[in-house]
This record gives sequence, C-alpha cells and structure tokens, in this order.
Amino acid sequence: MDIAHFLLTLIALFGAAKLFGELAERVGQPAVLGELVAGVVVGVSGFHLVDPHDTTIHLLAELGVILLLFLIGLETDLDKLLAVGVSAMSVAVVGVALPFLFGYLVGQSLGYSSIVSIFVGATLTATSVGITARVLSDLGHIHDPESQVILGAAVADDVIGLIILTVVSSLGAGRELSLWVISKVTLIAFGFVIVAIVLGGYLAPYLIRAIAKLRVGKALFFASIMFAFPLAYLAEAVGSAMIVGAFAAGLVLATVAVARFRSR
Amino acid sequence: MDIAHFLLTLIALFGAAKLFGELAERVGQPAVLGELVAGVVVGVSGFHLVDPHDTTIHLLAELGVILLLFLIGLETDLDKLLAVGVSAMSVAVVGVALPFLFGYLVGQSLGYSSIVSIFVGATLTATSVGITARVLSDLGHIHDPESQVILGAAVADDVIGLIILTVVSSLGAGRELSLWVISKVTLIAFGFVIVAIVLGGYLAPYLIRAIAKLRVGKALFFASIMFAFPLAYLAEAVGSAMIVGAFAAGLVLATVAVARFRSR
Repeated sequence: MDIAHFLLTLIALFGAAKLFGELAERVGQPAVLGELVAGVVVGVSGFHLVDPHDTTIHLLAELGVILLLFLIGLETDLDKLLAVGVSAMSVAVVGVALPFLFGYLVGQSLGYSSIVSIFVGATLTATSVGITARVLSDLGHIHDPESQVILGAAVADDVIGLIILTVVSSLGAGRELSLWVISKVTLIAFGFVIVAIVLGGYLAPYLIRAIAKLRVGKALFFASIMFAFPLAYLAEAVGSAMIVGAFAAGLVLATVAVARFRSR
Repeated sequence: MDIAHFLLTLIALFGAAKLFGELAERVGQPAVLGELVAGVVVGVSGFHLVDPHDTTIHLLAELGVILLLFLIGLETDLDKLLAVGVSAMSVAVVGVALPFLFGYLVGQSLGYSSIVSIFVGATLTATSVGITARVLSDLGHIHDPESQVILGAAVADDVIGLIILTVVSSLGAGRELSLWVISKVTLIAFGFVIVAIVLGGYLAPYLIRAIAKLRVGKALFFASIMFAFPLAYLAEAVGSAMIVGAFAAGLVLATVAVARFRSR
C-alpha cells in the first residue's frame, strides 16, 4: 500500500465511521453501533473500500483496541470495581457458562461429536469488552455502579475466554488435557492482572514524579503510552491478552493519579 | 510484522524520541534536533530497533509529516504570510539557486559530466519544511514575523524543489526538456496552492457550519482530517506534494476560523 492509497483508506474509514456514528446517535443509539455498521459498509461485505487483511490497517486496528482498553481502564475506579467484584464475577461466569452449555447442547442435538459441540459452545462465550465499554461510554453511563458490574464482567469474560480458548485448542490438537495445564493458564490469566495492578501501583508514582520533571512536549501522553504499551506486550508474552494488559495499565495509572490528588 | 513487534517498535520510537528530545531541550536546543538523533540511534545506522523500510512504519512516518504540515498550516496566518511574500520568495529563490550553483560548480571542477553536476546541484536544493517548522515551533518563535519569512521560504523551496526534481529526472531519463513541460510543472506546483486556498476558502465555512450541527464525538478533529487528507491526496494526484496540500488545508481552515471569530 502506498501513502496515497493509505490516505484514501483513512478517509473512507473516518468518513464512514463518523457518518454512521452520527446517524446512530440521531436515532438514540450509541455511536459505536453506527461505527460497526460503517465497518460492514466499507469492508469486504460492502463496498470493498478498506482491505482489513492489509498489514497496516490490521496493526492500526489492534492498536486502536489496545488504546481503547487503556482509556477505559483510566476511566475505571479500581475500588468501585473491586466493590462489585463478586457480582461482576458471577455475571461473567454465568455469561460464559450458559452460552457454552447451550452451544454444546445444540451441537449434540444436531448429532455432532463431543469435540465439535465443545467448539460450538466455545465460540459463543466471547464478549467484546471493547464494544461493551464503548456502548457504556457513548451512552454516558460508564461511571454508573451497574456499568462497573458490566465492565468487570466483560473483562473477566475476556480472561475466562482465554482459558477456554487454550483448553479447547489443546483438545482440538488432540493433546491430553491435564489439570496442571488448565491451572497454569488460569493462574497466568488472572495472575497477570493482579501482579500488574500491585507492581504497577508501586512503580507508577515514580513514573508520575519523573514526568513532572520533563520539559519536552506532550510528556504525560507519551509517558502513559510508555506505561501502557509495555504492559500490553508483557500480557501477551506471558500468555494473557494485550487488551487485558492495556486495561490493567489504565486502571493502575488512574488509581495512582487519584491517590496523589487525594493526598494533596 | 505482528502486533507484538509493532508495539515494541513504537516503544523504541517514542522512548528514544522523547529521551533525546528531552536531552536536546536541556542543552537549549529544539526537541526536534534530539528526535533526529534518536532516529539515527534506533534506525539502521544504530541499534536496528526500527526497520524504516517496513510498510507500516513508512506509512505512519509519511502520515506524521502530513499531519505536522497541516498543524503548521493551522498555526500560520495567511495575511502575515502574504505580507512577507516577496521576502519569503526571495529567500526561497536564493536558497535554491546558490546550493544548486555551488553543487554544479563542484561537480564540474571534479571533472564530472554536466548531467552529473546538475544532479549534485539538485540534491543540495532541498529544504525540509517539516524540520524548519518544528525548530521554529519548538523554540516558541513560530508566530514571529521572521518565522513567517522562513516558513514561507521553506514551503516555496519545497514547491521549487518539486519543479527541479521533475526537470532533472526528465534530463536523467534522456527526455528532451521543453519549455512547455517546465511551465506545466511550475504552474501545477504553484497553482495548486493558490487554487486550494481560494476554493478552500469558499468551501471551509460550509464545512465548519456542518460540524457545528454534528452530535458525534470529536467531530471537529475528524472534520479537519476529512478536509486535510483529501487536499493532501489531491495535491499528490495533480503532481504537487502531499505536504503542500496538507499545509494549504491548515492555512485555509485557520483563515476561515479567524474570519468567523472576527465577524462575531
């Protein structure tokens, strides 16, 4: 892709997203719903204006989700999230278990093998935490207590989804599934968030103090990026998901910033 | 390049740019000077952390220059720029003619052929309008009258550079050079800026009025992008440079915004 083509692609993406986002808002829907429609219209199912398999477009899309989850993390109050922790976790577990169970049963009733039925169930468990967060944010309800439950459940869903994905793909590859493998995946998935929040909480104040001394422009923005990107990368490296790392980074930075504000 | 590699590349780029930018500011230099050094350090001449030939990195770099010139255009007052037009043009012509002449003479004195000497001269004529603008901006002098002369000269240099490039590459390809070709290239290069400013000046108020009616988030930002990117694309399409189109877009939007502010 050359730069002229890239510019045209960006014009198509921005133009369609804002046009359909505006239409969605006018009929009382969250803008993100219109943006999803915009993606269908300009993508492979519509006018083929944007090639989603292009490396650059794909990388920018992934980067967008990472930045979105980082921003959502920044807007989330860790104390409030922990306060609704049990409710959020219950929602997450039910929200994973029921779709999985029904998917599995439908597979079985249609006469598919156990392994195919398990795959059908697994595909139905995923929740898009990004879309969930954007809907709540677009509707102006992101700070409501109910939203904390939904958001917490969506993030937990994502982590549980990773575990299921690992387990199911092990089954699919014909590998024997030990309790040890499941435990390890579970431990890493949830452990990363906890370690990131605890360790990040210790490191972030030093980062913020260092930023205050910088003279270069946009220091706060770049320092935030330099905190979020490595955490997203680490999350992926240890077997969790990038968006989980980015969300944890936002959560930590917000918590530290609030603590500093209160201590003044 | 996968997303993990992309994140690491961005971390290296942002980290090095801000580190060396900060160092440059501490010794009283514009940040952009440090950022140039940072590019050498992380690039192919240094630690090979960033591959400038990667498509995505290359496209983002081009996009960055387009956005920079758009921002510089926004910060430039068209009236002030026109007021120093003759001075700026004189600076630009001398700034192109002298390097070209000396390059040519050095080539001749070293015994090279006329065509090689002309190429040597041509390579010395280019001024980076991006770097010029960032230096003035970093030093906080972008609004000084002297800066308008420097900036105007840099933009004119870029346009003259395009003409020289076309002429020299025609010579290099062994094509006969007609006065008609040179006139056409010159007309397009300068004509685009004039047409963009005049036509853009008529269209921009409608754009601004339309933005005011939008409910969707970040409407002003996206509308600006939807004005700048097509103009940059058009500039390239008619044979001028993208950065010239982006600069013209910024200039027009700024002029219209100022006019509306005054008319209240």
